[in-house]
Amino acid sequence: MNTTPTRSLSSIMDGNSFQATNLGLLPSNEQALIRRRMAALGTSYRLFYRTPVHADRAEGCYLFTPDGTRYLDAYNNVASVGHANQRVIDAVGLQMGKLNTHTRYLQDGIVEHSEQLLATFPEYLNSVMYTNSGSEANDLAIRVARLWTGGEGLVVTAEAYHGTTELLSRVSPAISGGFPEDPSVRVIAAPDTYRVETNDMGAWFAAQVREAFEDLLAHGIKPAAFLADSIFSSDGIFPNPVGYLRPAIEVCHEYGALFIADEVQPGFGRTGDTFWGFERHGVEADLVSMGKPMGNGIPVAALVGRTEILDRFGTEVPYFNTFGGNSVSIAAANAVLSFIQETGLQSQVATVGASLRDAISTITSDAAFVGDVRGSGLYIGVEIVTDRDSKSPDGGRALAIVNDLRDRGVLISVAGPGNNVLKIRPPLVFGTSEVALFSDRFADTIAAAGNA
Amino acid sequence: MNTTPTRSLSSIMDGNSFQATNLGLLPSNEQALIRRRMAALGTSYRLFYRTPVHADRAEGCYLFTPDGTRYLDAYNNVASVGHANQRVIDAVGLQMGKLNTHTRYLQDGIVEHSEQLLATFPEYLNSVMYTNSGSEANDLAIRVARLWTGGEGLVVTAEAYHGTTELLSRVSPAISGGFPEDPSVRVIAAPDTYRVETNDMGAWFAAQVREAFEDLLAHGIKPAAFLADSIFSSDGIFPNPVGYLRPAIEVCHEYGALFIADEVQPGFGRTGDTFWGFERHGVEADLVSMGKPMGNGIPVAALVGRTEILDRFGTEVPYFNTFGGNSVSIAAANAVLSFIQETGLQSQVATVGASLRDAISTITSDAAFVGDVRGSGLYIGVEIVTDRDSKSPDGGRALAIVNDLRDRGVLISVAGPGNNVLKIRPPLVFGTSEVALFSDRFADTIAAAGNA
Repeated sequence: MNTTPTRSLSSIMDGNSFQATNLGLLPSNEQALIRRRMAALGTSYRLFYRTPVHADRAEGCYLFTPDGTRYLDAYNNVASVGHANQRVIDAVGLQMGKLNTHTRYLQDGIVEHSEQLLATFPEYLNSVMYTNSGSEANDLAIRVARLWTGGEGLVVTAEAYHGTTELLSRVSPAISGGFPEDPSVRVIAAPDTYRVETNDMGAWFAAQVREAFEDLLAHGIKPAAFLADSIFSSDGIFPNPVGYLRPAIEVCHEYGALFIADEVQPGFGRTGDTFWGFERHGVEADLVSMGKPMGNGIPVAALVGRTEILDRFGTEVPYFNTFGGNSVSIAAANAVLSFIQETGLQSQVATVGASLRDAISTITSDAAFVGDVRGSGLYIGVEIVTDRDSKSPDGGRALAIVNDLRDRGVLISVAGPGNNVLKIRPPLVFGTSEVALFSDRFADTIAAAGNA
Repeated sequence: MNTTPTRSLSSIMDGNSFQATNLGLLPSNEQALIRRRMAALGTSYRLFYRTPVHADRAEGCYLFTPDGTRYLDAYNNVASVGHANQRVIDAVGLQMGKLNTHTRYLQDGIVEHSEQLLATFPEYLNSVMYTNSGSEANDLAIRVARLWTGGEGLVVTAEAYHGTTELLSRVSPAISGGFPEDPSVRVIAAPDTYRVETNDMGAWFAAQVREAFEDLLAHGIKPAAFLADSIFSSDGIFPNPVGYLRPAIEVCHEYGALFIADEVQPGFGRTGDTFWGFERHGVEADLVSMGKPMGNGIPVAALVGRTEILDRFGTEVPYFNTFGGNSVSIAAANAVLSFIQETGLQSQVATVGASLRDAISTITSDAAFVGDVRGSGLYIGVEIVTDRDSKSPDGGRALAIVNDLRDRGVLISVAGPGNNVLKIRPPLVFGTSEVALFSDRFADTIAAAGNA
């Protein structure tokens, strides 16, 4: 592992990555494969873990290596309705045999799915545009917000990550080295409910947002948007208390800016409480981007918004996305949404998530290096600290825990500016037997970490 | 149709789109579906043709409506190995049942496919990164080029279109209304081999590129890249004479800028002559982006480049693309590439394309409104003009031809700044029987247009 700077790359990027210096730890066939991979794919392609997981097949919440070793997946939110979900496989297979083309032809599927998707939103969010990734959706959202408001100014949190395009690099401080100076962007402190000393997180966070908008105005920059993921995943996972986001969104609207809810992480029932993360806080979003779990791995993403806002963009700026909303991506999205709705998955997530959080809290109650266990539904963060008084992030120990757990057959990773928050974010089909298995292994890992 | 301004939206966007005022021309079930579509999807979602094509299924080079009406597809380059290609269906189905996850786990498929893909390139292009769309690949290419050169300046042609992200809107003059002023971008004239009066297109075009780089330097902007599609699709399709691009690329390299070959249109054997469009001109590309046909409709795209260039970016700028290079997208890409290679599709494209061009030339030889027939492989452009002396674009007649041909069961569209170049770009599996069918219908349309 590299030495950890105060603000290091978050786990989205680099925190938990394999180092070539460890190549010798691996069996020779994996060494050979990694060498070929490094030759063809280059330095952007980091692998997870001190010793990477060689993935061959997966089912439900389990990944298997070529030799049959099983891993419990407590990390992947893309396969939200489970790896190799039969309903998604069938829907994609059926549609591929029939038609897979773009949106310039009239097709029934996209209209039906759009209506079903929009029905999950409050009535004022009544129009949708499709893209291939959450990144394309967020990039589009900013363009739409800037056109609508006539402003350029954007506000994001300290460790925000909103995607891969050039524009999104400007609102993604999590990528440190790749985060350019941009006079129209303001970075505010995250609502770190573990460390910020306040009795009123809502007022405190709203004050940060206000200060950022005032500073934009003071520099002659009109505000366009406050862009945030309502569980602040890359900042370290801060979902609670419910409602604390409301004053910040009121401030955003007071300044004439749009609130872009980045639902790539909290959307599609992940939090258990509501289908969309922003609803949990009782706020109005003007634009809502979504991605990762939408097609269970088939690339599909979307931007939902008020009709008048999206129509203004659609009228003034030609936009066509070749694969966006194509027949097969829509079929996958439709299978995922129908599965979630018909199996009552969101309420299962609430129940299972609560029991997983309880188990983790119990297991870690005596561990002085565990400062906080928090989360909502199946998105859980566990703060690894040097001690409970100083609350200093202990990224080294967090990574050791992640790797130890991997060696015991359970996959998680880290989040937060210090790479010290265990990120536990399994497929939504995680059940009681998976909670039991996770708890068993996690207890061993925490015990081992305490003795280390 | 809107009145056509001198520089209108190209067909990528708007040239050939359905107007709601024509709703009354359609059967009532389609009217109802379009109304629902307009309500859910909004104004960005334009449909092709005066009366849209209601697509239900497709096979090979044919699309079918729900009532079984058949259309010959002479337009879609995404389904390059044919609609509902069985090999792609099988590969995707098999992989979906096995595993579909991201590149942070070690997987065999992506390594094998990357080696197979890189083997189609000259040896100096030896590294690949995966994205979900040609847009994401072009956006990444510009970021990579700017980091590598330390420059910001970009040069593109007059009607260039390079994709959907905010950054790409700055290098896509084709989107008129959405094309922002950007001090680091220079727009040069397209190599319009039909209208530019020169005996040496290579020298003429190189002079445009040189002038643009000089102007950048005069404004204190260091050149980063010349970004071009080597058949200049959206500019009006200018593939010939072979080699005319060479002096321009020499100029590009003389100024220390990278040549980014946007292969979204000419790549994967489309031109018949070479697998990649830039190779046709005997030039060296530093970065190569690809997209549309790569997965036959499953979203997958890539950026290929010199290892040292991509590795510099990978080391300095954290980049992770969630769906990019995922197991199923790679399986689709691998099926497409293998199909093209194993069926000898490229040489078939060369033969069939030549016979299609010959047929079109014969059919239009006496039509005074047809100024030029040009192309390479299965990318053919037909200039519709007011008369052969003035060469004035006749976008109105071109659209009438497109719509008449649609009514006769053949799908094409238009390209070029005047929306007046018939764009004929069928799936690569277009065969001799499709050439015969196309020619039959096209002859009727040209005859009808002559009598109009």
